[in-house]
Amino acid sequence: MTENKKRLLTGIKPTAETLHLGNYFGALKPFLDMYGEYESFLMLADYHALTTVRNGETLRHNSYEVVRDYLAAGFDPKKAILFQQSAIGVHPELAWIFECLVTVPFLMMAHAYKDKVSKGEEANTGLFNYPMLMAADILLYDTDIVPVGEDQRQHVEYAREAASKFNKAYGQTFKEPQERILKEVAIVPGTDGRKMSKSYGNVIPLFGTKDAITKAVMSIVTDSSGGRPVNVYSIHKLFKTEEELAPLYEENSGKYKLLKDALVEDIEKMIAPMRERRAGVSDEEVKDILKDGTEKARAIAEAKMKDVRAKIGVTL
Amino acid sequence: MTENKKRLLTGIKPTAETLHLGNYFGALKPFLDMYGEYESFLMLADYHALTTVRNGETLRHNSYEVVRDYLAAGFDPKKAILFQQSAIGVHPELAWIFECLVTVPFLMMAHAYKDKVSKGEEANTGLFNYPMLMAADILLYDTDIVPVGEDQRQHVEYAREAASKFNKAYGQTFKEPQERILKEVAIVPGTDGRKMSKSYGNVIPLFGTKDAITKAVMSIVTDSSGGRPVNVYSIHKLFKTEEELAPLYEENSGKYKLLKDALVEDIEKMIAPMRERRAGVSDEEVKDILKDGTEKARAIAEAKMKDVRAKIGVTL
Repeated sequence: MTENKKRLLTGIKPTAETLHLGNYFGALKPFLDMYGEYESFLMLADYHALTTVRNGETLRHNSYEVVRDYLAAGFDPKKAILFQQSAIGVHPELAWIFECLVTVPFLMMAHAYKDKVSKGEEANTGLFNYPMLMAADILLYDTDIVPVGEDQRQHVEYAREAASKFNKAYGQTFKEPQERILKEVAIVPGTDGRKMSKSYGNVIPLFGTKDAITKAVMSIVTDSSGGRPVNVYSIHKLFKTEEELAPLYEENSGKYKLLKDALVEDIEKMIAPMRERRAGVSDEEVKDILKDGTEKARAIAEAKMKDVRAKIGVTL
Repeated sequence: MTENKKRLLTGIKPTAETLHLGNYFGALKPFLDMYGEYESFLMLADYHALTTVRNGETLRHNSYEVVRDYLAAGFDPKKAILFQQSAIGVHPELAWIFECLVTVPFLMMAHAYKDKVSKGEEANTGLFNYPMLMAADILLYDTDIVPVGEDQRQHVEYAREAASKFNKAYGQTFKEPQERILKEVAIVPGTDGRKMSKSYGNVIPLFGTKDAITKAVMSIVTDSSGGRPVNVYSIHKLFKTEEELAPLYEENSGKYKLLKDALVEDIEKMIAPMRERRAGVSDEEVKDILKDGTEKARAIAEAKMKDVRAKIGVTL
């Protein structure tokens, strides 16, 4: 890692999710294609997960699983710092300091909170405060760039606001981060042609067995017009260029089963090594990687907090 | 400190306050008379002060001053653990965990927040969340008893609620603390006969010079009926029994100046040694005492957090 690279930070939340091709092509791959350009920090956001997960075994299990997913998908911990949020005590500490600098109405404008309230539900206080914990996550590491989807732009705005309020009150301390909006990659279609989404039940699992992949692909909805099966083709395009696919689809027009078999093979070609890698990642390996990254991240976070503590006047 | 004693915890907030006799007899002395019966923790609540203090020098100065006040007034750090909240990183960390267990409407019922909003003011988020930070303060140490004024009973209720919610979700972990309501000691009258209060400008400073004490006593309001000066007498009663005072006031009925001089001498007799002790407490002494107490407190808090972290599932 050189000093000249800009810093990037992103979080992965250990919630129970079985990844599918939509997650991979829509979010994971764009990140994996990009993080090497930066001095990147990938944070296992386990303290954020507490707003929804209230079972220790579940949270622990999810933490291992989500790191395994990233490693299997090709994330290289040697090219970035992968660390565990909760193992660096100062995140909630800095969040508290930021909370003392902002008002309740300011946090009430957060989308996640507003959505909750507009549904007539009682918002969890963790959910209410998490923009300040997220600000701490980002600002502790002098982050330049936070890659987010369009709907998460506000998180980075909150972090900037926290930085600015602190800097104004106590002198220049925090770098104001910028969001990098991840362009919605061409929507990944599911087996029914709609956007691939767990809630639609139209997914192809990312780390599925060949049987599971085959089953999902065979369920792709086709019409009986006998031409090119649109839904098969549009998923196939994720794995091969149009030029590569042209002869196959022209020669086998209407042969749905054959085309689906070809798709299964192409998916399998990409997934098999990931699946194998994933099966080979032990809990110990996850722990070791996190431990190593957490040590590096902690040194940076502690140095920043030392400065913060002196400025707010709690060092005697 | 023996294992058999119950644990007591109380906080002192480093806000700029020049103590007066009303503070001493109304709050400080009742605490000093009591803390030795317990295994007591006295917490310098500097992270709570952040909700109002936004200047590092001020907070640092106030922290030294408030500890000096306690030492001068007779608090013996060998008989209790005096520690600095901010120097034990896990307080805000546990507060975050509790925040994830309670709802926003639940915290909106807190008196301090409601008061603020009812005045049409925008509440600080730190003020909004502080019942959960206070719950962490109390629960980290398996506190049995929290001495509070009647108006602070709710703080302990919030701590009990946090303990109960955590215990329910993750199994028995926290002891539910009890409040010990400090009976309002006979209200200390000020120089105008109303309750002694800075806002009334009727105070006698606790650590004042003899000149300052004399000036304040001479300003005690008396009527011209020539009998017993009520306001002088009711302050005098704080220093001597009615039996001790009877001859003085009977022999010198109407001699206001003489009686005030006698009061000055009695106040001075108590205050002079305190004033001297206070002047002798260096910043270094405060630091050393806090460092020593903080180490002891940290060991207890860290052990508790180790258990908490395992239960919520962030230890891998």
